[in-house]
Amino acid sequence: MSATWDQIVERLRELSDLVAAIKLMHWDQATMMPPAGGAARARAQATLQATAHARFVDPEMGALIDGLSEESLSNEQEANLRLLRREYDKAVRVPQELVRELAEVSGRAYQAWTEARPAADFSVLEPHMVRLLELKKREAEALGYEKEPYDALLDQYEPGMTTAEVESMFQGLLRGLKPLVDEVLDNVGDPPGWLGDRYDPDRQMAFCQWLVSQLNFDVSEGRLDISPHPFTIHIGPGDVRQTTRPDPDNLMMSVYAAVHETGHALYEQGLPREWADLPIGSPPSLGMHESQSRLWENQVARSRPFTDFLLPQLKERFPEEIGMVSPDEFYRGVNHPQRTLIRVTADELTYNLHVSFRFELELALFRGELSVPDLPGAWDDMMSEHLGLRPDSVADGVLQDMHWSTGSFGYFPTYTLGTIYSAVLFAQATAQLPGLKAELRSGVTDSLLDWLRENVHSLGYQHDAKDLIERVGGGPITPEPLLDYLRAKYSELYPSA
Amino acid sequence: MSATWDQIVERLRELSDLVAAIKLMHWDQATMMPPAGGAARARAQATLQATAHARFVDPEMGALIDGLSEESLSNEQEANLRLLRREYDKAVRVPQELVRELAEVSGRAYQAWTEARPAADFSVLEPHMVRLLELKKREAEALGYEKEPYDALLDQYEPGMTTAEVESMFQGLLRGLKPLVDEVLDNVGDPPGWLGDRYDPDRQMAFCQWLVSQLNFDVSEGRLDISPHPFTIHIGPGDVRQTTRPDPDNLMMSVYAAVHETGHALYEQGLPREWADLPIGSPPSLGMHESQSRLWENQVARSRPFTDFLLPQLKERFPEEIGMVSPDEFYRGVNHPQRTLIRVTADELTYNLHVSFRFELELALFRGELSVPDLPGAWDDMMSEHLGLRPDSVADGVLQDMHWSTGSFGYFPTYTLGTIYSAVLFAQATAQLPGLKAELRSGVTDSLLDWLRENVHSLGYQHDAKDLIERVGGGPITPEPLLDYLRAKYSELYPSA
Repeated sequence: MSATWDQIVERLRELSDLVAAIKLMHWDQATMMPPAGGAARARAQATLQATAHARFVDPEMGALIDGLSEESLSNEQEANLRLLRREYDKAVRVPQELVRELAEVSGRAYQAWTEARPAADFSVLEPHMVRLLELKKREAEALGYEKEPYDALLDQYEPGMTTAEVESMFQGLLRGLKPLVDEVLDNVGDPPGWLGDRYDPDRQMAFCQWLVSQLNFDVSEGRLDISPHPFTIHIGPGDVRQTTRPDPDNLMMSVYAAVHETGHALYEQGLPREWADLPIGSPPSLGMHESQSRLWENQVARSRPFTDFLLPQLKERFPEEIGMVSPDEFYRGVNHPQRTLIRVTADELTYNLHVSFRFELELALFRGELSVPDLPGAWDDMMSEHLGLRPDSVADGVLQDMHWSTGSFGYFPTYTLGTIYSAVLFAQATAQLPGLKAELRSGVTDSLLDWLRENVHSLGYQHDAKDLIERVGGGPITPEPLLDYLRAKYSELYPSA
Repeated sequence: MSATWDQIVERLRELSDLVAAIKLMHWDQATMMPPAGGAARARAQATLQATAHARFVDPEMGALIDGLSEESLSNEQEANLRLLRREYDKAVRVPQELVRELAEVSGRAYQAWTEARPAADFSVLEPHMVRLLELKKREAEALGYEKEPYDALLDQYEPGMTTAEVESMFQGLLRGLKPLVDEVLDNVGDPPGWLGDRYDPDRQMAFCQWLVSQLNFDVSEGRLDISPHPFTIHIGPGDVRQTTRPDPDNLMMSVYAAVHETGHALYEQGLPREWADLPIGSPPSLGMHESQSRLWENQVARSRPFTDFLLPQLKERFPEEIGMVSPDEFYRGVNHPQRTLIRVTADELTYNLHVSFRFELELALFRGELSVPDLPGAWDDMMSEHLGLRPDSVADGVLQDMHWSTGSFGYFPTYTLGTIYSAVLFAQATAQLPGLKAELRSGVTDSLLDWLRENVHSLGYQHDAKDLIERVGGGPITPEPLLDYLRAKYSELYPSA
């Protein structure tokens, strides 16, 4: 090992440690922090982020990267160097002044969003969004791109994926999905009453604690807590934390949120420990991460074999509330599709319609085909076109998600990319693990987890997500495996569809 | 405000933010962190500590302090400058190499202590202690002192207090305390059985949560959690956290630990918010801090009026366990003194005997009158002389506390200094608040807290602890108020004494 490499590793360790502190502050803020600690916490987080950023863009870091490029390296070092150079170049290309302005304006825009949503008043957010869009366009120019500015933004969340590829994939998905949704929803009645009964939140949490362990989430190396918005965070090696939210009127939300986050958490717990501080030790993209959460939440935990395992377990904890529900009713209940306004509570069938029109809208903003003042109207039109509903209020329309107010353009498509990836992965896993269905019926997921560990988790970031999925799937990524899966599932659930 | 001052404040804010992250990592490690996260956490803490230290000893900081000294300053700025110069000079006087070595050796020594104690084998720790003592002597030389090396160490925890002053104060205390202890303990029987009954830990925690709020700990600006060793930590403005430890076989331990920590926590919550990042915004010493915890734990919560308030509250939560205990029995039970081997569970009467001989021992080490290999024997002799007991094992003798293995020489005396301060403060408060006893009988502590806010908390670190206590007490600090308080209390409890 060279002295240059050692120095780089030393710096990467220091950055890992700073980032661990930032992540812990974030987790604590969402789960434990007393309300009055917010102002001091925001300042401390900004200071640590600035400290970490300054350490990373330090010209000495650039010189070390240049130096390493001239040495003879192992394959692993080559892979690290490639990612490190990409990250470093991106970080130094954006002028400090623009970084600072983006942080300030998105901070104000997010604050405005927290006021605009309850007031159902887009005009509170609008001027901040206009400014933010200008700055994000400048950021895209500074970062550089091949075809269009949106490529640069997408690349921050899904490196290696282009706008054109996403557009074509999403068009293919919609072509197959919309007729399916229309057919199915014509045959669906009201959701069953037991879904909305009252379930004690403490017993919900106890059940979720049991369930995440059952799914092999290692609680000696992690925790499950409560937060308003469920999330998973890797604080450091041996410390992966996830959250869920028990809603007294919705048992299955906390349960499926816990399974979703367990998908993220198992991925983090399965990354190669020895690469913990290195670029190749992290997941390659948000889409790749989402593929894991979607796979466990939907393909596993909403499957008939697994719901057959789950129901008796739930009945033990909620005998009065759910004792009379049959396996058939339970399976249909947790897979009940419907046209709704809100993305985060949308079902598996309609979810990607919500995501794809957000992608179209943000693309139009960056292509100059849509202006911010016209966004609420365009949103309502899209909602009407894709879901057949018009929101009564912008609170349930364009203001429902925080993403745009934080400047996270290019983030939404990763939700659907993840869903597409999850179907590719699950189709392969099912083909290679003939006993999987029987195992799921007993609540056993060990062989599936082993398969994911081998084919995804243990690889870290040696390949971009696209390359990884294409290697596992044996060809170019298409939405077909997802469409096949949904068609099979919903034609069995609603045979007339 | 000058540009120099603004730059100093900017740097102090940055340091506050780094320290907030370090404190949060510490709190999390003790309360929430999954076991496997320890190694990564230790490294991250070391990185952040090194980052903060490097920022503080930066020569530019020294230049700014020098620059400020030449400007005309407000009283507040003068006070800040004085403390800042003291801290900066101390920090730069110790060579970086020695700082690094001390961190390494104390890390290894602490690790050795964690192995030596369960093995009851001092020889595991001995070589590390020998090395640590050498390094601490070098640190004392680097820091500088007036009369003897121990002054420099004491000054790190109790600035402004000298070894000679502590020695004379402790001698005075022992002269009064030892005859009292002997007389009382001749009249004391066995502790009452209900003290050791089984109490559900969850209900203990619920009671402690209620009690700390009753004592005006503001839970919108803090939390109470569980940790093996109770502690209080100020994460940042609006965020003060304390812990206790419910022991199923010892109800009163968790209750009094919670009151003790509430004393610390009320102090932190009462510090001037506008000075949060400035030197004058912190408590002046460990002894001052301990004065608050001791005052609430002993003078308040072990007083007859307050135990009369507490008992019915406890009976509501533990009717079967404690329903038959009378107010008299309860008061005598929570004030039951006895000769024991362990400091942390010692009662109010004998506690300071434990502390004072530790002070004598560490003083002898630094005066070259005692060597590390002779320490276990000297400990046992001291225990026998002061408490009339000889430990069967070093695990209950010299190895019972971690302090020395972490290099914290000069720390122990602050426990007894705090107790002495608490008696000075409580005597004054009692004299100035004639209705206090009646209030305590109703569980009301508002006027006492107001008095402490005005006379102690709101002053921050404008004065050294010694000066502050002398101002409030109206003269030189003596152990007499503590002795008077103990004599009055125990002669009433055990009239024949």
